[in-house]
Amino acid sequence: MGINDRKIVNADRKCPEILHPDRIEAESFRIIEKEIGEMGRTVPARYASVIKRVIHTTADFSYLDSLYFSETVIDQAITALKEGCCVVTDTNMAKAGIHKSSLEKLGGEVLCYMAEEEVARSAKERGITRAQVSMEKSAETGKDYIYVIGNAPTALLRIVELAEAGRLCPRFVVGAPVGFVNVVEAKERLMASSIPCIVPRGRKGGSNVAAAIFNALLYDVAGR
Amino acid sequence: MGINDRKIVNADRKCPEILHPDRIEAESFRIIEKEIGEMGRTVPARYASVIKRVIHTTADFSYLDSLYFSETVIDQAITALKEGCCVVTDTNMAKAGIHKSSLEKLGGEVLCYMAEEEVARSAKERGITRAQVSMEKSAETGKDYIYVIGNAPTALLRIVELAEAGRLCPRFVVGAPVGFVNVVEAKERLMASSIPCIVPRGRKGGSNVAAAIFNALLYDVAGR
Repeated sequence: MGINDRKIVNADRKCPEILHPDRIEAESFRIIEKEIGEMGRTVPARYASVIKRVIHTTADFSYLDSLYFSETVIDQAITALKEGCCVVTDTNMAKAGIHKSSLEKLGGEVLCYMAEEEVARSAKERGITRAQVSMEKSAETGKDYIYVIGNAPTALLRIVELAEAGRLCPRFVVGAPVGFVNVVEAKERLMASSIPCIVPRGRKGGSNVAAAIFNALLYDVAGR
Repeated sequence: MGINDRKIVNADRKCPEILHPDRIEAESFRIIEKEIGEMGRTVPARYASVIKRVIHTTADFSYLDSLYFSETVIDQAITALKEGCCVVTDTNMAKAGIHKSSLEKLGGEVLCYMAEEEVARSAKERGITRAQVSMEKSAETGKDYIYVIGNAPTALLRIVELAEAGRLCPRFVVGAPVGFVNVVEAKERLMASSIPCIVPRGRKGGSNVAAAIFNALLYDVAGR
C-alpha cells in the first residue's frame, strides 16, 4: 500500500493503525516477551511480572540485569498486600503512579508526606531532606508500612537506619531512587540489610519504575 | 579509613556522607557535565538545560542522542510560558511531576482530564482511549495550551489530527510517550507536523521524562 492509499484510508477511518485500548497493553507485553526471547534470555517466573512491567514502563531492557530481589520479598509482599497494608512513598509522582483502585480493593492506601508544610519546615530547620523527615514521620505512627521510594536516596538510608534502630519495621521496600549522588550507596546499604526489598541496582530508577514494581505485585494479588 | 572506623564515625554523626539537600542537585549536574565531557560530547547551549535535566531524571545518557527539538520550539516555549499559558497532560503522574509553584508564578496551571468519569465513559462507549477523549476535551475549550504527553501515543496522534483539522493550536508539545505499540509512529507523526515540539525519539520516554523536559524550560523562565 503506497503512501497515498494510506492517506485515503486515514481520511475514511480515523487512526486505523490504533489497537483497541484493552489490547494495547497485552500487545506491549507480547513484544517484550518476544524480544527477551530473541536476546536469548529468560526471566524467572517468580519475578517475571515485575521485570516485564518495569521494561513496559521504561522501554529499557537493561532492567533485565539490574533488578535485585531479596530472598523472600515476593512472599512477604503478597502477604502484606493481602492484609491491606498501607504504602508510604517519597514522591507524589510515585503516589500518582500507584493503581489506587486495586490497592483499595485490598484495603490499602498510599501516604506521601512530602508536600506537608510541617515536613518542609522541619527539614529546613535541621538541614536534612524532606524525604528523611517523611520517613521519620511514618515511623512515629507506630504502624508497619510498605515503602515505595522512587526519588530520594536519603529516604532509603533513613528507612534502614530507623529499621536497624528498631523504630520501624518495613513490610517490604521498593528501593528505586534514580541519580548520581548517594543513590548507588543507598541501594547497596538497603540490599545489605535484612529488609525485604526490590531494587534496580545502579543509578537508574525513578518514581515511574518504583510505581511499576509495586503495581506489578499489586496486580498479581488484586487484579486491575 | 577501615570499615570499623567508618562505623564509629557513623554512630557519632548521622549520615556523614549525605550532602546538604541544596547541594545534591548541583552536584548531580556537575557529575552529568563531567561525564558528558569524558564521553567527548558537548550539548548545544540552547538545549543544554533540557538534555541535562532528562539525564538527571533518568540516569540514562542515551537521551544525549535521542532528544529532538523542532526548529523554533525553545523560543515558542519561552513565549508561551511567559504568557502564563496552561498545560494539558495525559497522565496524573506527569501532572504530579510538574513544578506547580514555578508555573503558578507565571500564571499557568496544569490540567489533566484522565481521571474524570465523563472521559472514561466516553472512551469506553467509543472504544478509544481516555487520552484521545482528553485531547478532544482540551480542544473544546477553545484555548491554546502547552501539551505535556508522557504516556499515550494516542494522545499525540489526536493532537496532530485536531491541529491539522484546525480544532486546536498547541503552543508546543512535549511528546514523550514510552512503549512498544504505536509510540515510535506517533512521535514520527508529531515530528513531521508543523507543531513546535520536543521529542525523545524511539521507544523511551515516560511521565518523568515529559515532566523533566517541561520543568527544565519552566526553571529557565521562572526559576524555582
